[in-house]
Amino acid sequence: MTDIRLAVDVMGGDNGPSITLPASIRACRNYAHLNLKLFGPESAIRPHLYGLPPDVKNRISIVDVTTQISMDEAPTSALRYKQDSTMGRALKAVQAGEADACVSAGNTGALLALSLFLLRPLDGVKRPALISTIPGNNKKRVFLLDLGANVTQDANALYQFAVMGSVMAETVEGVKQPKVALVNVGVEQNKGNAIVKEANKLLLANKDINYVGYVEGDALFNASVDVIVTDGFVGNVVLKASEGLAKFIAREAKKAATKNIWTKMLSFIARPVLKKIYNRVNPDQYNGASLIGLRGIVVKSHGNATEDAFMYAIQEAMKEVERQVPDKIQSKINHALVNKAE
Amino acid sequence: MTDIRLAVDVMGGDNGPSITLPASIRACRNYAHLNLKLFGPESAIRPHLYGLPPDVKNRISIVDVTTQISMDEAPTSALRYKQDSTMGRALKAVQAGEADACVSAGNTGALLALSLFLLRPLDGVKRPALISTIPGNNKKRVFLLDLGANVTQDANALYQFAVMGSVMAETVEGVKQPKVALVNVGVEQNKGNAIVKEANKLLLANKDINYVGYVEGDALFNASVDVIVTDGFVGNVVLKASEGLAKFIAREAKKAATKNIWTKMLSFIARPVLKKIYNRVNPDQYNGASLIGLRGIVVKSHGNATEDAFMYAIQEAMKEVERQVPDKIQSKINHALVNKAE
Repeated sequence: MTDIRLAVDVMGGDNGPSITLPASIRACRNYAHLNLKLFGPESAIRPHLYGLPPDVKNRISIVDVTTQISMDEAPTSALRYKQDSTMGRALKAVQAGEADACVSAGNTGALLALSLFLLRPLDGVKRPALISTIPGNNKKRVFLLDLGANVTQDANALYQFAVMGSVMAETVEGVKQPKVALVNVGVEQNKGNAIVKEANKLLLANKDINYVGYVEGDALFNASVDVIVTDGFVGNVVLKASEGLAKFIAREAKKAATKNIWTKMLSFIARPVLKKIYNRVNPDQYNGASLIGLRGIVVKSHGNATEDAFMYAIQEAMKEVERQVPDKIQSKINHALVNKAE
Repeated sequence: MTDIRLAVDVMGGDNGPSITLPASIRACRNYAHLNLKLFGPESAIRPHLYGLPPDVKNRISIVDVTTQISMDEAPTSALRYKQDSTMGRALKAVQAGEADACVSAGNTGALLALSLFLLRPLDGVKRPALISTIPGNNKKRVFLLDLGANVTQDANALYQFAVMGSVMAETVEGVKQPKVALVNVGVEQNKGNAIVKEANKLLLANKDINYVGYVEGDALFNASVDVIVTDGFVGNVVLKASEGLAKFIAREAKKAATKNIWTKMLSFIARPVLKKIYNRVNPDQYNGASLIGLRGIVVKSHGNATEDAFMYAIQEAMKEVERQVPDKIQSKINHALVNKAE
């Protein structure tokens, strides 16, 4: 198997090295073709590598960087002053071709801004997008984008999100002719605002995508489609609201659980079930999200990702490298631009 | 107590008279100052009134209307051909001052279109809005608007939604100086698109409202504020997504419940808890939604409302009549327009 080289921002996320390093080392043990460049203070990283078998140790290198981007730093400030932070240097390694992908649990706004600036969008891509999966019908993983890389509504951008999402479902999930749907306030053709209607028209005209039309919000966790497209404002709010709702349900269930012996028992039995459900509705936290449409692969793990979640983000990055996602997006986008011009 | 006169669209909703009539009669029994005009086919209504005590029966009148608006009828078609339907006639009774409010579980799009056309917006109101409550922190009821009366983004409309939502929290819930927040993709001042930023500026300038700034999606079911404002596209999608998520959780819990004797027991104990939670996250279905900003009171019960839910919509309409919501909105909107002009 061809070697895969990942650049890991060790300092990103609320828990930093205490999460990112165990996950990175575990990934290296599990995958013999994985090579890691760890970006962070050497003094913080080195102790974690003691006692590792040489065949694992040899595939890990440390790039000593001490500057960090805090979780509340403004993107503009990161762009201006923090290009040589752990995150910035990890992205520069991808830019220079020294790594195949970057994984970070750091500040999302800063990661978007630095990725856009350093890696640049693919030819013809108007706006890169943040994509993740949510649970659908029958254990299906449904791709949802944009999750907030953009906040302006734009019909052409929605059209391109559909194209890029379709590539993700096909290459990462292996779905043939993935069904793509557009979020709207109703499923009838006359519903929605001008931007959604225009995007719908563009999508209907592109026979290269298996576009199935509008879906409403209630289809989001009950989808039989493979890709759901919406603008970054709606995607961001709806995903965070789902997190909020999952937390609310957990809270209510906990409250109910303290009432009597029956509900205490209930809580004991219900906890693993609820936890599993909670993980599934927190796709971003659990699965990580990918920034797509760039000349490079960037996977964002959640700020308070667990070791498992960060490990998952590493696996996601490996998959995208193996399946050459950016090349495939570039090819589909070229097609889409030709289709649109016709 | 002053008499309250409600116009009820008996035929609206998936279940029509089998839900709306028992709820209406129950309301009449409970509230001695309630008078109802029931709009529907006399032959369908009359049998339900047999055997009622005269003091209840005397407060119920039937307006024999046979034309109905189907649940999938386009708003434009309702507007053009169905003004004399059960829904249209109930609204006309409000327009003519023969009823104080209209309650319907019918087609939302048609109800919005007919209400706008027949009742007209209050002076200075750009866009009426659909408002309902979602659960917040500490059993608080949080008003959320717009839930889809409008699909175009507009800073001035968001500003007015905030003013109208504030009036609802103050008059209907009795909250002093209700805290009002605006949905955005982050809480920092630099976050969001141009429309949200402009609305934020307008709200900061109006000292008449207790505006506390931005909230993100995850605050939606965990809010310490009283009113949450967003545009109708986001509001509609996020509310429906919450319904979808609640259904997903119910489905998953049911699946888990069939696995063994423990989880079967769990399911038995958990069902009432889950149902209660489900009702709370389906505010629209449970509480009904009000169309505000018009020269009249219109309460929309969910299409598949139960008898309890329809009863709740009637109580909501009574509350809004008693507290003269439209007058209070008019007064606050006048203030807001002056504040903005200064």
